Amino acid sequence: MGNRIQIVEVSPRDGLQADPADLSTATKIELVSRLAAAGHTRIEAASFVSPKAVPKMADGEGVMAGIDRVPGVRYSALALNQRGVERAIEAGADEINGVIVATETFSQRNQGATIEEAIARWRTISDTARAAGAATAVTISAACGCPFEGRVASSKIADIARIIADTEPDEIVVADTIGVGVPSQVVELFGLVAEAMPGAALRGHFHNTRNTALANIGAAVGAGVKVFDSSLGGVGGCPFAPRATGNVPTEDVVYMLHEMSYDTGLDLDALIATSTWLEEELGHEVPSLVAKAGGFPVATSE
Amino acid sequence: MGNRIQIVEVSPRDGLQADPADLSTATKIELVSRLAAAGHTRIEAASFVSPKAVPKMADGEGVMAGIDRVPGVRYSALALNQRGVERAIEAGADEINGVIVATETFSQRNQGATIEEAIARWRTISDTARAAGAATAVTISAACGCPFEGRVASSKIADIARIIADTEPDEIVVADTIGVGVPSQVVELFGLVAEAMPGAALRGHFHNTRNTALANIGAAVGAGVKVFDSSLGGVGGCPFAPRATGNVPTEDVVYMLHEMSYDTGLDLDALIATSTWLEEELGHEVPSLVAKAGGFPVATSE
Repeated sequence: MGNRIQIVEVSPRDGLQADPADLSTATKIELVSRLAAAGHTRIEAASFVSPKAVPKMADGEGVMAGIDRVPGVRYSALALNQRGVERAIEAGADEINGVIVATETFSQRNQGATIEEAIARWRTISDTARAAGAATAVTISAACGCPFEGRVASSKIADIARIIADTEPDEIVVADTIGVGVPSQVVELFGLVAEAMPGAALRGHFHNTRNTALANIGAAVGAGVKVFDSSLGGVGGCPFAPRATGNVPTEDVVYMLHEMSYDTGLDLDALIATSTWLEEELGHEVPSLVAKAGGFPVATSE
Repeated sequence: MGNRIQIVEVSPRDGLQADPADLSTATKIELVSRLAAAGHTRIEAASFVSPKAVPKMADGEGVMAGIDRVPGVRYSALALNQRGVERAIEAGADEINGVIVATETFSQRNQGATIEEAIARWRTISDTARAAGAATAVTISAACGCPFEGRVASSKIADIARIIADTEPDEIVVADTIGVGVPSQVVELFGLVAEAMPGAALRGHFHNTRNTALANIGAAVGAGVKVFDSSLGGVGGCPFAPRATGNVPTEDVVYMLHEMSYDTGLDLDALIATSTWLEEELGHEVPSLVAKAGGFPVATSE
């Protein structure tokens, strides 16, 4: 179907990890259930990184074990090393998502690894995931800019993609981790990455930190990208700009895509209702605008 | 210059009119001054509509009289009838902006006029403005959707443009008044309007109510539109969705355009500083994200 766009819902992992609230395992499981009920077929459900580094994601096994698996839904998990991918596979993750940060300083601060080491780790993760029959996706983060090194040449992202092309991931994810990207840059990036890694499906991960995420998704769709990450409510802040918003809100992306005649398989009203529920569970306002304004207004006259 | 995009700053009129705060005439004048100092050459400074209908804009004459005119800056005003355009010209407006609402119900509720009556009023406004040597711009509002009638066919906007083409406005403004538009629709709209009114410059007015404004501006730029309205801080709510945001924030638009290598002539840092000042004057948070996150981060390592 040419007009199909797939959304990977990242609120349970990428979203909650950066949120000030600390939800219980039971509430995380309920979130995953509600997301599947709203039509999500791809959900990033858990993280298997060091519990010491990210204590609030330490219950990955508990979340995965508690999910009432819906047929047709793919539950993915983040892993950054051999121990992580083993835990994720053991917990039943259908897909493993790895990360390589595009800049040396950010890679060392975020992952405690040089880019070269992160690439080596990705090879191990990929091998283990494939051996277990799981799908693989690799995110190249800080692809549009770095909080420490500033501007990042798009060719640098393509170079990393070229180096790991032989790992043949099911998807390569271009991530604007700090929300600095703009449409022209995004089109260039996906063009170069597609050349560097022929055959891999392209996926975009955009943050709305500077209000450009939907513009970037619109441009990426125009460039042929068919899969995007988003986070219900826009949950997930930006650690580099404390007052700022982070992940792009799922319901806002879905509103735009549906109005552009794309099919996401998602129920916008159910997403809005779930976003409102999540906002209550978190105990603070979320950045979504469609959750506040509603979808396209229903005619009240005539 | 092919990479020049012009911003019409609407916070002093369209923005403040929909804000809960009620700024003094002196503060409005200071806002206009600060905007010009940040590089704005087009500022919608005042409204000359019925003071009974919009009490907080009743000081249009006072604002216009108090502005320390900067050479090269065009100060525009809104007028919706003969009395309004006469007041605006008398007050020294360089440009008159009129409005025709694209749907019958919204036109009657918002302007107390049928579409036909609004078109007739525009003819009078245009004639008077031109006779006085002022530039003219006409906004077709509710162009992407109506709070009362729901969906609006793009051909309807083009039909109105065709009817008033003989008034030869300097600009025709396509306005997504309630913030429902999406990129594909915007490209279609501008294409049809350009055909219907050859020779008029195209200008876009987008609200970020459903997070699509920057995506729409990005798409419109791609379609050749060179002039956009925006409001510092995103000041100006949405009367049809009380919790929602309205006007697209100037600093967010300017961030995106500059990163896309367009030249707006504006100083982003000065805009952010002015937005912070305006937020304090209004006494509440404004929706701008760039004002919170800052521009492109400066490299801190190496």
